[in-house]
Amino acid sequence: MPREITAFSNPLIKRIRSLREKRHRRDEGLFLAEGLRILTEADEAGHLPLYLFYSKDSADHPLVQRLTERIEAGGEGEVILTSRDILQKLSGKDNPQTVIGVYPDLACALDQIDRHTAPLWMVAQSLRDPGNLGTILRTGDATGAGGLILIDDCVDPFSVESVRASMGALFTQKIVQTRWEDFIPWLRAGPGMLIGTSLNTDFDYQQPRYTPPSFLLVGNESRGLPEEYEQQCDVLVKIPMLGKADSLNAAVATAVMAYEIINQWRHQG
Amino acid sequence: MPREITAFSNPLIKRIRSLREKRHRRDEGLFLAEGLRILTEADEAGHLPLYLFYSKDSADHPLVQRLTERIEAGGEGEVILTSRDILQKLSGKDNPQTVIGVYPDLACALDQIDRHTAPLWMVAQSLRDPGNLGTILRTGDATGAGGLILIDDCVDPFSVESVRASMGALFTQKIVQTRWEDFIPWLRAGPGMLIGTSLNTDFDYQQPRYTPPSFLLVGNESRGLPEEYEQQCDVLVKIPMLGKADSLNAAVATAVMAYEIINQWRHQG
Repeated sequence: MPREITAFSNPLIKRIRSLREKRHRRDEGLFLAEGLRILTEADEAGHLPLYLFYSKDSADHPLVQRLTERIEAGGEGEVILTSRDILQKLSGKDNPQTVIGVYPDLACALDQIDRHTAPLWMVAQSLRDPGNLGTILRTGDATGAGGLILIDDCVDPFSVESVRASMGALFTQKIVQTRWEDFIPWLRAGPGMLIGTSLNTDFDYQQPRYTPPSFLLVGNESRGLPEEYEQQCDVLVKIPMLGKADSLNAAVATAVMAYEIINQWRHQG
Repeated sequence: MPREITAFSNPLIKRIRSLREKRHRRDEGLFLAEGLRILTEADEAGHLPLYLFYSKDSADHPLVQRLTERIEAGGEGEVILTSRDILQKLSGKDNPQTVIGVYPDLACALDQIDRHTAPLWMVAQSLRDPGNLGTILRTGDATGAGGLILIDDCVDPFSVESVRASMGALFTQKIVQTRWEDFIPWLRAGPGMLIGTSLNTDFDYQQPRYTPPSFLLVGNESRGLPEEYEQQCDVLVKIPMLGKADSLNAAVATAVMAYEIINQWRHQG
């Protein structure tokens, strides 16, 4: 039977709510994910929450029942029945999702990555927008990428906004937070084509033949990639711009590149 | 010489600040755009603001001086020197942009669109996220689209968030707000290929030969396109998904489709 919590002052509620802040996520090694669709994707990718919060309104939903059963059978998580008001407090939204899950931090170290497990890897440098980061994870899942390597001072991939934008892809992608001076030696210790997009080239993105494992490098939303990072790329390409703007949204550019790369591989088959 | 406003209680400040709400934008026929980059793009696309607000901190910036001169020479707009605190109040952000412009609503009617002026047009149905809408405008500019036709209950394209995400592309794209029952007769009264992406097909998005003028139709973020709208498409295609997710972010899917379409045309040349 689920534990029931109805008091806003309950210490667990306070603790879980604090996970909306990065420093508490870091201290606790936990993060929040909201919504049945994302929690179900997480389960399918092998991740059950340490805590599952739901309200009476959604108790009869078959996906809620299935998650509840699996958590109780697993023996490591706890299912908590609570009020809609408390769900709202946890999610910070007027119209909260039906369920909220609390998961252990998924970040892994660079040396835990086996580059041969996927043909494509995403690499982002100083990405500032959590929506872009989550969207890149979602695109990574869709294009068969193995994970996302975050370089320098990227936004936290475990923020509520990033988790939401990833639509659950956060749970299917390996996530590494590292620095350029650690990434480059690791990359060069094995096979890998480092691909950057840049305004400083006229080389069309459909010209090169991309080979796996490919590492697709995306830069900061307003500044792009530092010049010294561009110089270390194996291929530097430009996505054509037919209008007045000289750049695309960072998550959009990543997706246009990623689909070009996998389209080349799809057509070899 | 610019007028100077330093009082929060000034009626113009109150009026401009109210444009952050949709009903005031609609009543006034005005909207806000923030930041030198976006205001400069607007100017290059032929749009000067009715009001330009800037603070002393940015008075020496050459782009601010250029905008100021052009507005004063044009004789229709007014340049207003104000404080950083008031800029912050107008923008609603702790860290406001250096300039804020107020522009007349750019929406136009369907019968003002000449489809022959561009090979590609974007069409969005019930899009709910202002960031997605702005990002689609930005992609539209980059792929040489003529504009964005908004069907049914889309989010307001002139919201601060949408304008920001468009990075100025709002000023290069025609924007129409209409209904499906008006759009379809207009579309069918001339040439045009209506292209939809859907989960209800296995037809790969790289298979068809797209022909101009192409109308790329994107559906609501969570529900996709209504079935009866899909049935009226000339081509219904699927972007391949190699992972666990069954869909991409709406703005990302639009960009992947748009680049496939223009890549086909680029290679015919």
